[in-house]
Amino acid sequence: MDGDLNIILGKLLKILIIFIIINILVSLVGKLIDRGLKDRKITNIYSSTNRANTLGQILKKVIKYVLYFIWLITSLEMFDINTGSILATAGIGGLAIGFGAQSLVKDIITGFFILLEDQYAVGDHVKIDRYEGIVEELGLRVTKIRDFNGELHIMPNSTIQVVTNATRGAMRALVEISFSYEENVDRVMEVLEDVCNKIKDTNENVLDGPSILGITNLAEYDVKVTIVAKTKPMEHWNVERQIRKMVKEAFERENIVKAYPRRIVFGGEKQ
Amino acid sequence: MDGDLNIILGKLLKILIIFIIINILVSLVGKLIDRGLKDRKITNIYSSTNRANTLGQILKKVIKYVLYFIWLITSLEMFDINTGSILATAGIGGLAIGFGAQSLVKDIITGFFILLEDQYAVGDHVKIDRYEGIVEELGLRVTKIRDFNGELHIMPNSTIQVVTNATRGAMRALVEISFSYEENVDRVMEVLEDVCNKIKDTNENVLDGPSILGITNLAEYDVKVTIVAKTKPMEHWNVERQIRKMVKEAFERENIVKAYPRRIVFGGEKQ
Amino acid sequence: MDGDLNIILGKLLKILIIFIIINILVSLVGKLIDRGLKDRKITNIYSSTNRANTLGQILKKVIKYVLYFIWLITSLEMFDINTGSILATAGIGGLAIGFGAQSLVKDIITGFFILLEDQYAVGDHVKIDRYEGIVEELGLRVTKIRDFNGELHIMPNSTIQVVTNATRGAMRALVEISFSYEENVDRVMEVLEDVCNKIKDTNENVLDGPSILGITNLAEYDVKVTIVAKTKPMEHWNVERQIRKMVKEAFERENIVKAYPRRIVFGGEKQ
Amino acid sequence: MDGDLNIILGKLLKILIIFIIINILVSLVGKLIDRGLKDRKITNIYSSTNRANTLGQILKKVIKYVLYFIWLITSLEMFDINTGSILATAGIGGLAIGFGAQSLVKDIITGFFILLEDQYAVGDHVKIDRYEGIVEELGLRVTKIRDFNGELHIMPNSTIQVVTNATRGAMRALVEISFSYEENVDRVMEVLEDVCNKIKDTNENVLDGPSILGITNLAEYDVKVTIVAKTKPMEHWNVERQIRKMVKEAFERENIVKAYPRRIVFGGEKQ
Amino acid sequence: MDGDLNIILGKLLKILIIFIIINILVSLVGKLIDRGLKDRKITNIYSSTNRANTLGQILKKVIKYVLYFIWLITSLEMFDINTGSILATAGIGGLAIGFGAQSLVKDIITGFFILLEDQYAVGDHVKIDRYEGIVEELGLRVTKIRDFNGELHIMPNSTIQVVTNATRGAMRALVEISFSYEENVDRVMEVLEDVCNKIKDTNENVLDGPSILGITNLAEYDVKVTIVAKTKPMEHWNVERQIRKMVKEAFERENIVKAYPRRIVFGGEKQ
Amino acid sequence: MDGDLNIILGKLLKILIIFIIINILVSLVGKLIDRGLKDRKITNIYSSTNRANTLGQILKKVIKYVLYFIWLITSLEMFDINTGSILATAGIGGLAIGFGAQSLVKDIITGFFILLEDQYAVGDHVKIDRYEGIVEELGLRVTKIRDFNGELHIMPNSTIQVVTNATRGAMRALVEISFSYEENVDRVMEVLEDVCNKIKDTNENVLDGPSILGITNLAEYDVKVTIVAKTKPMEHWNVERQIRKMVKEAFERENIVKAYPRRIVFGGEKQ
Amino acid sequence: MDGDLNIILGKLLKILIIFIIINILVSLVGKLIDRGLKDRKITNIYSSTNRANTLGQILKKVIKYVLYFIWLITSLEMFDINTGSILATAGIGGLAIGFGAQSLVKDIITGFFILLEDQYAVGDHVKIDRYEGIVEELGLRVTKIRDFNGELHIMPNSTIQVVTNATRGAMRALVEISFSYEENVDRVMEVLEDVCNKIKDTNENVLDGPSILGITNLAEYDVKVTIVAKTKPMEHWNVERQIRKMVKEAFERENIVKAYPRRIVFGGEKQ
Repeated sequence: MDGDLNIILGKLLKILIIFIIINILVSLVGKLIDRGLKDRKITNIYSSTNRANTLGQILKKVIKYVLYFIWLITSLEMFDINTGSILATAGIGGLAIGFGAQSLVKDIITGFFILLEDQYAVGDHVKIDRYEGIVEELGLRVTKIRDFNGELHIMPNSTIQVVTNATRGAMRALVEISFSYEENVDRVMEVLEDVCNKIKDTNENVLDGPSILGITNLAEYDVKVTIVAKTKPMEHWNVERQIRKMVKEAFERENIVKAYPRRIVFGGEKQ
Repeated sequence: MDGDLNIILGKLLKILIIFIIINILVSLVGKLIDRGLKDRKITNIYSSTNRANTLGQILKKVIKYVLYFIWLITSLEMFDINTGSILATAGIGGLAIGFGAQSLVKDIITGFFILLEDQYAVGDHVKIDRYEGIVEELGLRVTKIRDFNGELHIMPNSTIQVVTNATRGAMRALVEISFSYEENVDRVMEVLEDVCNKIKDTNENVLDGPSILGITNLAEYDVKVTIVAKTKPMEHWNVERQIRKMVKEAFERENIVKAYPRRIVFGGEKQ
Repeated sequence: MDGDLNIILGKLLKILIIFIIINILVSLVGKLIDRGLKDRKITNIYSSTNRANTLGQILKKVIKYVLYFIWLITSLEMFDINTGSILATAGIGGLAIGFGAQSLVKDIITGFFILLEDQYAVGDHVKIDRYEGIVEELGLRVTKIRDFNGELHIMPNSTIQVVTNATRGAMRALVEISFSYEENVDRVMEVLEDVCNKIKDTNENVLDGPSILGITNLAEYDVKVTIVAKTKPMEHWNVERQIRKMVKEAFERENIVKAYPRRIVFGGEKQ
Repeated sequence: MDGDLNIILGKLLKILIIFIIINILVSLVGKLIDRGLKDRKITNIYSSTNRANTLGQILKKVIKYVLYFIWLITSLEMFDINTGSILATAGIGGLAIGFGAQSLVKDIITGFFILLEDQYAVGDHVKIDRYEGIVEELGLRVTKIRDFNGELHIMPNSTIQVVTNATRGAMRALVEISFSYEENVDRVMEVLEDVCNKIKDTNENVLDGPSILGITNLAEYDVKVTIVAKTKPMEHWNVERQIRKMVKEAFERENIVKAYPRRIVFGGEKQ
Repeated sequence: MDGDLNIILGKLLKILIIFIIINILVSLVGKLIDRGLKDRKITNIYSSTNRANTLGQILKKVIKYVLYFIWLITSLEMFDINTGSILATAGIGGLAIGFGAQSLVKDIITGFFILLEDQYAVGDHVKIDRYEGIVEELGLRVTKIRDFNGELHIMPNSTIQVVTNATRGAMRALVEISFSYEENVDRVMEVLEDVCNKIKDTNENVLDGPSILGITNLAEYDVKVTIVAKTKPMEHWNVERQIRKMVKEAFERENIVKAYPRRIVFGGEKQ
Repeated sequence: MDGDLNIILGKLLKILIIFIIINILVSLVGKLIDRGLKDRKITNIYSSTNRANTLGQILKKVIKYVLYFIWLITSLEMFDINTGSILATAGIGGLAIGFGAQSLVKDIITGFFILLEDQYAVGDHVKIDRYEGIVEELGLRVTKIRDFNGELHIMPNSTIQVVTNATRGAMRALVEISFSYEENVDRVMEVLEDVCNKIKDTNENVLDGPSILGITNLAEYDVKVTIVAKTKPMEHWNVERQIRKMVKEAFERENIVKAYPRRIVFGGEKQ
Repeated sequence: MDGDLNIILGKLLKILIIFIIINILVSLVGKLIDRGLKDRKITNIYSSTNRANTLGQILKKVIKYVLYFIWLITSLEMFDINTGSILATAGIGGLAIGFGAQSLVKDIITGFFILLEDQYAVGDHVKIDRYEGIVEELGLRVTKIRDFNGELHIMPNSTIQVVTNATRGAMRALVEISFSYEENVDRVMEVLEDVCNKIKDTNENVLDGPSILGITNLAEYDVKVTIVAKTKPMEHWNVERQIRKMVKEAFERENIVKAYPRRIVFGGEKQ
């Protein structure tokens, strides 16, 4: 019986020691998290010290309770109490939470690679899925994009697949010009060539061109010719507007006729 | 045989002790939940004390039965009865429930991050998926959005992916003006410039502009020019309506011709 | 050899005792289910005592066979027969059933939260996915919605994501009025203002307005103005019909011209 | 050595006993299945005794081989041969089959609830997904729907989500009547009122109405008024056809002008 | 030391015995497969003995290597070498293969039920998803459908969900007849009645009807009446073509005017 | 202490022996792979010996490291070091890789069945999903299809579901002929019959027909008749073009009037 | 008690030894990664030494902590402390991370096969899903495609399924020519034949053709003939533009009439 008592006391001692170790661990992790929170980068990602603190408190609590749970199981185990059923119960709960938290992990992994591979930076003009605009904030979990009309799109990084970045290298201005079938193609080309040259000389945002691609469509009622120019990033819309204005004025000057839709009408018999 | 009886008695004692501990645990958890329910925040999320109480009762019962189940398994285990088959049966049931409850966990995690990152607040005008309106309630599990036409959209948070918030910073009013090809572009621009200046001087909701972007489309039968203005949040629709009215009046005054669809009609032979 | 026999007899006794316990459990669960079935609420959910009884019988049988299966495994185990392969076989079957039953669990959990959070009640007018109508029955597993055309939509609760409820608070009547470009906007506004005032005075279903938003579209061939009114729930369609009728009569009286589609036709050369 | 032999013999005996037990089990299950097959209901579900028998034979064989497999593993185990690798191999195969059979289980569970909750019965007119018609057969695994054009849709029950049943309660006949803007709305209403009254008096399939909702649309070139009537199930199409015929005749009689699409045409300059 | 040697020798003997047993198993399974391949049905499913043989060889090799792998693990186990890591490695590989093979299992299970429930047979005209045609081959893994334009659709059975079979019972011919608003409905009905009667008398493929449903649409510029007839399977297109031809001839004979699209044109002022 | 040393030495010996066995295994597998790579078929699948070699080197390295890992675990195990945590860590990594490799396995299984069942061969004209063209390469992992416009579609086999093969048996040429309502149907039929007979006599690519199906549509402004012909594979487009040309010429010759869209125009009052 | 102390000391020694081994492992792996980073290829994939270093530091830290965790568990295990609960907790966390990292693994596997099978190379013109352009960078994790309009699409390799490569072999220029029904087909063919011959003689980018396919459509108001030519890769757009220009000029020269949409107009009665 003495031995039994000894064993029990030994076990209780062990449990106490583990308890102390776990408490040390808890406070250690707590300090680590506190130090981490002062790190400028993490504060940046959560936009305010306040919010980062909240998250830190929650993280600390979660780790504390997990460690206490481990201590509880270990202690019970020592007195030959089968903890399989407790572990199974906790495991199913844990799995449910794990599955739920899955997209959180995916957010962070995707966010990390966007940062590492520098897919876009704050200020870039991007298209992601059907959202388009200027990147305003790029965090580990979400990306914020400011649409041209002022709306703010907040996207979890895990929803980001293909990123289309419009501020990486020169852009291309593309204007399709329409005129009627009666016009002489060569004459129209000459007029457009003139316009292109004028723009080339005066607009410093144009890097290459504008040049005429040729007849890109023999459409239902008009001939279509496409003008193309390489421009500085984000300047292609301006260049397109300039090309449109100058072509319209040149066509007016040169009497090149605008092609409106046409119909050939036959008179049927009186019904 | 004596030893056997001793052992059996010892085991029964153990079972009794565990039973008492579990009952204490049950009542402890019960009190914890009760105290939590009085917390103002949780009551807020469930909009009424009544509903929060119902949920509390259910939570208490679930925890009670889970603890009793663990006690049962532990007791059986002590008498060398293999509980693997019971655990397996319970495990499959638990998994089924766990998978079913998965989206509940996802609701709460997503809800938590929306709150933490302040993606939107009550009163904000948001677009989520194809639902749009004013946020009326923002809970851990569901978000309620009031559509402009009065309908109330109730969305589980787990269905929320990209959030578009229209009350974070200035919005942009965008009006496309159409006139016919015969008009002189420069003269039209002057008239529009006048309208823009008048609005800039009188409308205090306009932060920047309105200004003219240029010719944004040489369309089938009309020239299109776009006017853009930065406005206070939620005021862009008002500004757009004002621009439209003033442009219409200016065009009437200045005899700038509205472009209706055009057709060139050829007479074919009598059929 | 004696000891062996003793051990075997002991084991057989154990098996018998467990068998008796399990039979008691079976009848206990049976009574619990029977008592539950008399509960008014469950009968409500299944719309008839009859159907609830059928479900009860099935539940009782399932529990009975599961308990017998556990008894079988435990007994075999006692005679040192490895039951791993039996458990594995049963486990795979159980998993298959568990996965199949998964959406059943999801039905019930979603149904429970719809009830708890009072997302809609019998008699509410709701839109769920592409189904719309009056809620006729709201059960744990399915929701029944009566379409305006009389069809009954039966939806498992797990298919319900975003709920749009049109009976929570005031609705908005929205009518877009079209007139031709030749009309003077201010005069049309006056006429519409008159109509709005008349409705405001006479229709008690209108809570706020009707008022005119302004020019909401300068369309291809007409100017569009929108009238908006806050109404009691489910009365917005009536109010819209009244606005339409009164605007039509006012326009006739005041000779405000309806805008039909317009074409400018040029005569081309004879082909 | 003697002991060893004894032990081996004992084990062989055990294996033999288990083999006999398993054979008894096989024949027991066989008889159970045979008896089940004579059950009228199961035969119904598989439409013919023949097909049910085929399925029964397969089920019997599967159970037989599974039981023999369990016997094999148990026997090997007794001679200290580790069967983990065999079980693992079988387990992976079993999982693959289990996943494949998953939708079979889902078919049966869904089918069971359709039957229990009486979502539709043979002869009902239902819409499921994009399939519509009269239910011709309602089994545990598949539902057969006869389209109006004679095609037979065979749907596994697991593909059934929202069921739209058109034979549960009264249906609504809905006819939209169009007339031109020049007509006096009050006079048209009177004519339609007359038609409604005549139908109310003569058509016994109409339960309530027909009545006029009011102006439901001020369209591009016509005014639209909607007539609504409650009818017996499946009679709404007939009532709609009758309303259409009588309205057409009344309009002819009363010289209410049909509204054809309108265009205002301006002559442009000769091009 | 002697005992040790004895034990080792005993173990080696055991390994040898198992090896022999496994070899016997391998050749047994090989013969079983060979016999199976001669079975007419399996050859049918794979369309040629040649292809079935190839599949047989692969199956035999797979089983052989799996059995040798089990023998290897069992042998290692006997010399106290922990095989957990080997099993884990093999298990992950096996799982990957199992998941990949999953749709193969689903093909076969779905194929089996299509055959058992006789959902369609070779020669039937079916629609599955967006593929339509005559079933040309119906195997355990794939179904081959010959489109009317001659293309052969090869569908894995697991992609088959809802089957629409057009050769199960009578089909319905549906022709919508259009005439202008000026026509007297009763007179048109009489003419159509005549056509229907003539077809009823002469066309033996028509089982019931043709009959006139009534006015099914008061469309933009024409009145629409629908004729319906029950026909033998696959004859509905022929009947529809006959109805169309006879109606066209009857309308010509009776001077019932075809309704072409209509426009009311107003002359606007010269622009 | 001596025994201890002996045991340790015995264990080290064992570890050495296993190490040697594993090295032999590594070189054996290496040779097997090398021999396999010389196999003409595998080289074919990877289009070049070079690429196959690269893949071989990688496969060899993977197997080598897996075997060394197994050796490491087994050795540690012998010195009573618990390797559960290492195995768990490796297992999670392995699972992640296994899930990632899943579609690779699916590629190969699908590719194998396409080859075995001869669903298509190099040179066949196939449609898979929305890709269409001539099969240019058919490997275990990917299928390459050359589009008619010259683009090369490279499809992983796992993305292939329904295969539509246009080179298995006769194709059908389908031409829809349109003429106006004023034409006599019987006369048009005669003219078309003539064209059909001429083609039947002269075009040897036509296997059956061409024949006239009858009136397949009474459309808005034209009557539509369909001509159908069975042709050799890939010749149906040629036959269709021939039918079109000959019908056009026959209609011109016989003065059968082309049906252009029609409008009935009413003059409204001056607005 | 001495033995106990000895055992404890022995265990502590073991733990120390394992700790030293693990530290050696950590520094070994560190050096391996450092050496790997100097490898030119890996630096290429991550476009800069800088970024590769960052990734290397992270990889080193992860491996270090995993090894320390294994050491911790092993040490605890030695003092009979059950680590099951710790492992389970870590396992669930690990699974969540594993699932999140899954698409990272898929990126790399897919990227590897694209490189190995040379599906596309830098400079190729490819279409992937709805993204099209010139491949600018091809890494293990992402592919970068430069759109013609200058935008840069950054695609994770796991989103790449079917690759359409337009720079593998000759391309086909396809131009559809439209003319009116009054033209004689044979004469038009002759004119087009002339154009084709001229292009064949002068344009060296044309490999085969251009040739005329025949009448590919008898459309609503025009006859359509298709011209096809085999060209060098990426030259087909140029050839198409040349064909269009030359056909337009030839048609003008030969007075072949452009087919504009046609209407037959009947005058209705005055309304």
